[in-house]
Amino acid sequence: MNPDYVHGYSTKESVRLVDQATTLTELLHSDTAYPAGSLVLEAGCGVGAQTVALAGNSPRTNFVSVDISEESLAEARRRVETLGLRNVVFQRADILNLPFGDAHFDHVFVCFVLEHLPNPEEALERLRRVLKPGGTMIVIEGDHGSAYFHPDSVYARRAIQCLIELQRRVGGDSLIGRRLFPLLTQAGFRNVRVSPRMVYSDASRPVFVDGFTRKTFTAMVEGVTEQAVGQGLMDAESWAKGIRDLYRTAEPDGTFCYTFFKAVGIK
Amino acid sequence: MNPDYVHGYSTKESVRLVDQATTLTELLHSDTAYPAGSLVLEAGCGVGAQTVALAGNSPRTNFVSVDISEESLAEARRRVETLGLRNVVFQRADILNLPFGDAHFDHVFVCFVLEHLPNPEEALERLRRVLKPGGTMIVIEGDHGSAYFHPDSVYARRAIQCLIELQRRVGGDSLIGRRLFPLLTQAGFRNVRVSPRMVYSDASRPVFVDGFTRKTFTAMVEGVTEQAVGQGLMDAESWAKGIRDLYRTAEPDGTFCYTFFKAVGIK
Repeated sequence: MNPDYVHGYSTKESVRLVDQATTLTELLHSDTAYPAGSLVLEAGCGVGAQTVALAGNSPRTNFVSVDISEESLAEARRRVETLGLRNVVFQRADILNLPFGDAHFDHVFVCFVLEHLPNPEEALERLRRVLKPGGTMIVIEGDHGSAYFHPDSVYARRAIQCLIELQRRVGGDSLIGRRLFPLLTQAGFRNVRVSPRMVYSDASRPVFVDGFTRKTFTAMVEGVTEQAVGQGLMDAESWAKGIRDLYRTAEPDGTFCYTFFKAVGIK
Repeated sequence: MNPDYVHGYSTKESVRLVDQATTLTELLHSDTAYPAGSLVLEAGCGVGAQTVALAGNSPRTNFVSVDISEESLAEARRRVETLGLRNVVFQRADILNLPFGDAHFDHVFVCFVLEHLPNPEEALERLRRVLKPGGTMIVIEGDHGSAYFHPDSVYARRAIQCLIELQRRVGGDSLIGRRLFPLLTQAGFRNVRVSPRMVYSDASRPVFVDGFTRKTFTAMVEGVTEQAVGQGLMDAESWAKGIRDLYRTAEPDGTFCYTFFKAVGIK
């Protein structure tokens, strides 16, 4: 367990991560299906929020889902078992020190992980080692600088900047989505293609207003209240206003935009 | 001719607007086709950059394309004639004082116009008057706050802020894309649906790198150099660095993101 993980390991946080996965599954994963019989590494599976989508979309593919946190793995295991999925093996492992031979996997998948690593280039290199030549590397990341909304609010924008800064202070980069193309290209992957997946919420899309604007994005920012105010990045009153203004964008005349990036490259 | 139009009326500007239309036609207009025999108002056609896409996509529909500038209309007329399109009638008219009866048109289309108006609500009301009940209102606008890029640059971001501020000073709102949903809803349109159209450029998409990042967006920002520096919004050196940093995002390891919003509502 890495105590610096910015999103924390609380139960509430797990609920948020699952809400996020449910709302976003279609947007992020519907175009990922692996061949029957292939062996896929999911690196950094966390509580299994993406695992269930991956394994469900490719029921005859064998997944090895690894994470550094035993606690997260236990929850991921429960989630996969609850759904009756039998094509996932969980294993504790560090992405930077993978216990697999060279070219062990047909494909590698990593989602919402590189943003937390001080050296994503190194992680990609380590992941590339265990991938077979010709296999695909899929990377999905968000980009907090892609968030904008109506009504606009300088407080809300500052609150988001605090989250970006906090993630930076623990070695992460929450603006990583926009640079997946150069990251994968420079790591030696070929034919890199990046497709942005924009979440746009307004009152005509209530599932996204509730599932994404409120329960994913704003909940995520609200989740670092203590750190942001405690570390003096914003005073408590301005912070509270920022959070209120983010929730405000979920009202019937509000809109909210955020973009995830999905990259695929070939070894 | 409105001398306050922020993008100007120079020949170079016309070239930019045409480059933009060519690159973006598919993204913005491929899903707009009107029934044969219907009568459609294109309000604010400018130099005809969108007119040719509209009229080409719906060759048996009759378009009335209006603009306040005779000079722009003349160029739009030339463009439509060059392509041999015979289903467009051009007419000089002010959107706020349309010379048409109530419910005259089957459909109304407006693209890159509301962003320039001090009172887009009023414009929508005037356009709604000439639309038949049951007809569609289509609005397409950009949102300069949707621009972000790699490598990130505080100078480039400040340069974009200058463009937003200059547009604000002449009564426009270049962040209007994100608020099309409430604008159309509050103007009384029903079933309003907004679809974001994101332009994402990296080296794997050379047409967008050159046609959008360089020749549309950066050229547009560069086009207000004199005003931005002249009005003291940014010093000349910082401005030049901002422009260089925008062009830098078009290099092989750079990326660039921008989002247009297309709204459709029913009267």
